[in-house]
Amino acid sequence: MILLDGKKVAGEIKAEIAGEVARLVASGRRTPQLVAALVGNDGASETYVSHKEKACRDVGFQSQIIRLPADVSEADLLTLVMELNADDTVDGFIVQLPLPAHIDEHRIIEAIDPKKDVDGFHPVNVGRMTLGLPTFVSATPAGIVDLLAHYRVETSGKHCVVIGRSHIVGRPVANLLSQKARPGNCTVTLCHSHTQNLKALCLQADIIIAAIGSPGFLKGDMVRRGAVVIDVGTTRVPANTKSGFRLAGDVRFDEVAPRCSYITPVPGGVGPMTIVSLLRNTWKAYRG
Amino acid sequence: MILLDGKKVAGEIKAEIAGEVARLVASGRRTPQLVAALVGNDGASETYVSHKEKACRDVGFQSQIIRLPADVSEADLLTLVMELNADDTVDGFIVQLPLPAHIDEHRIIEAIDPKKDVDGFHPVNVGRMTLGLPTFVSATPAGIVDLLAHYRVETSGKHCVVIGRSHIVGRPVANLLSQKARPGNCTVTLCHSHTQNLKALCLQADIIIAAIGSPGFLKGDMVRRGAVVIDVGTTRVPANTKSGFRLAGDVRFDEVAPRCSYITPVPGGVGPMTIVSLLRNTWKAYRG
Repeated sequence: MILLDGKKVAGEIKAEIAGEVARLVASGRRTPQLVAALVGNDGASETYVSHKEKACRDVGFQSQIIRLPADVSEADLLTLVMELNADDTVDGFIVQLPLPAHIDEHRIIEAIDPKKDVDGFHPVNVGRMTLGLPTFVSATPAGIVDLLAHYRVETSGKHCVVIGRSHIVGRPVANLLSQKARPGNCTVTLCHSHTQNLKALCLQADIIIAAIGSPGFLKGDMVRRGAVVIDVGTTRVPANTKSGFRLAGDVRFDEVAPRCSYITPVPGGVGPMTIVSLLRNTWKAYRG
Repeated sequence: MILLDGKKVAGEIKAEIAGEVARLVASGRRTPQLVAALVGNDGASETYVSHKEKACRDVGFQSQIIRLPADVSEADLLTLVMELNADDTVDGFIVQLPLPAHIDEHRIIEAIDPKKDVDGFHPVNVGRMTLGLPTFVSATPAGIVDLLAHYRVETSGKHCVVIGRSHIVGRPVANLLSQKARPGNCTVTLCHSHTQNLKALCLQADIIIAAIGSPGFLKGDMVRRGAVVIDVGTTRVPANTKSGFRLAGDVRFDEVAPRCSYITPVPGGVGPMTIVSLLRNTWKAYRG
């Protein structure tokens, strides 16, 4: 069993980007900048945004967190989006989700200039990804594909079972891995809450991507020997740690890992790759 | 075995639209208009466009075919697109594909105002479809879903195997049927030229959608008893008919039909539903 060490790979990619940024800045050019808008003070969102900010610092990007109160109006948030669209010093920006219920997420996302939409959530970027055109692919699916590519995991002709059809992980990774591309050319089965016989489907899979956010959902007896398992779950569960919680994956690692050819750990697998994908998208936005 | 009679259902939907258009025009309002731009004189494209024009006449829409020579420049075609975008009497328009090799199809499609893109090919409309948002769904996938809905074919929790990952049929219908919607909530497996064990996958399917354009590809021994089979194939094969050809589906109807609970014929199945979907999209564009 080989561990798909996202932390290590992400570190290597960050070092590469940092090198390029340093050369750029030394040549007198403007520093790339990623801005994150954070509404309210959800604990998980705070953590994600601060990880993103730290990653920016690590590679030499400028970054900025713009904090708005939980009761900010949709109109005020739209105004901020327009300002960021117009600001030439901002290469890419994200509006951290989820947003409070009184704000229409789709309206906000569709207001973002697709050329600065480094989260890849704007419909035009989702559409380009679905069509196999160059675009900003959203961070988690892009990170998964990069991790498979880094370890040269064969995907062509393999049966990939994706569990979970979320807009940010399951559906886009299903669309990516079934494209005529490398990595790609998988036969993909997209499973979700209405799926019957999930276990039987998983047992046919060469590659399983678990992205439902249900700790320990994928058990050892659902995975055939030699399978590749990607665990996207990062659910916070109470634990005796400094933060008071730990991150739990969707996969029972102890049971599943011995059966696998490759498997991602949680933490240290998909998570770090996700953040690096955001950096890569920002870098791409900067270069235009 | 029940025949999914697309011709009959399409006729009913057309009659409904015709009634609404007649009421509208009687009340003094402008007639809806669909325009088709046709480059060159490919035989199949001529046929498709003339079918669309006839369908428009049937429901009382205005329609117009704008013919351009095969050597039209990309710039001139873009100019036409801009004119159609700006023309308030045009509710929707299509640029019939394929285009000659010297024209970048994606550039043309992305120039179409998404609000007039009744083919649903613009990335923003593809993205909205992928995200499960209201949009113009492209005609063939929309027609398939409407046909399933009309016959109240249960899709929730069913395993749907889609053969073919084209941008205009396979991939969008896979995305549609896996949405949390009715019809929808299928577990979808998207298969293509790199798929291994296609027969074994088909034999697990409750619903098979064959969309590869390979006459007679799906044989009787690939379909389990009680399955629903949708045949999207419409390949022209030489025949002793007035036109010199006949339309051949991807399914060996004689072998497969006796095993099915529901099956579409070719012709008269998905084809007529496709044209009606285009009318529906135009109607939707008109109402805004």
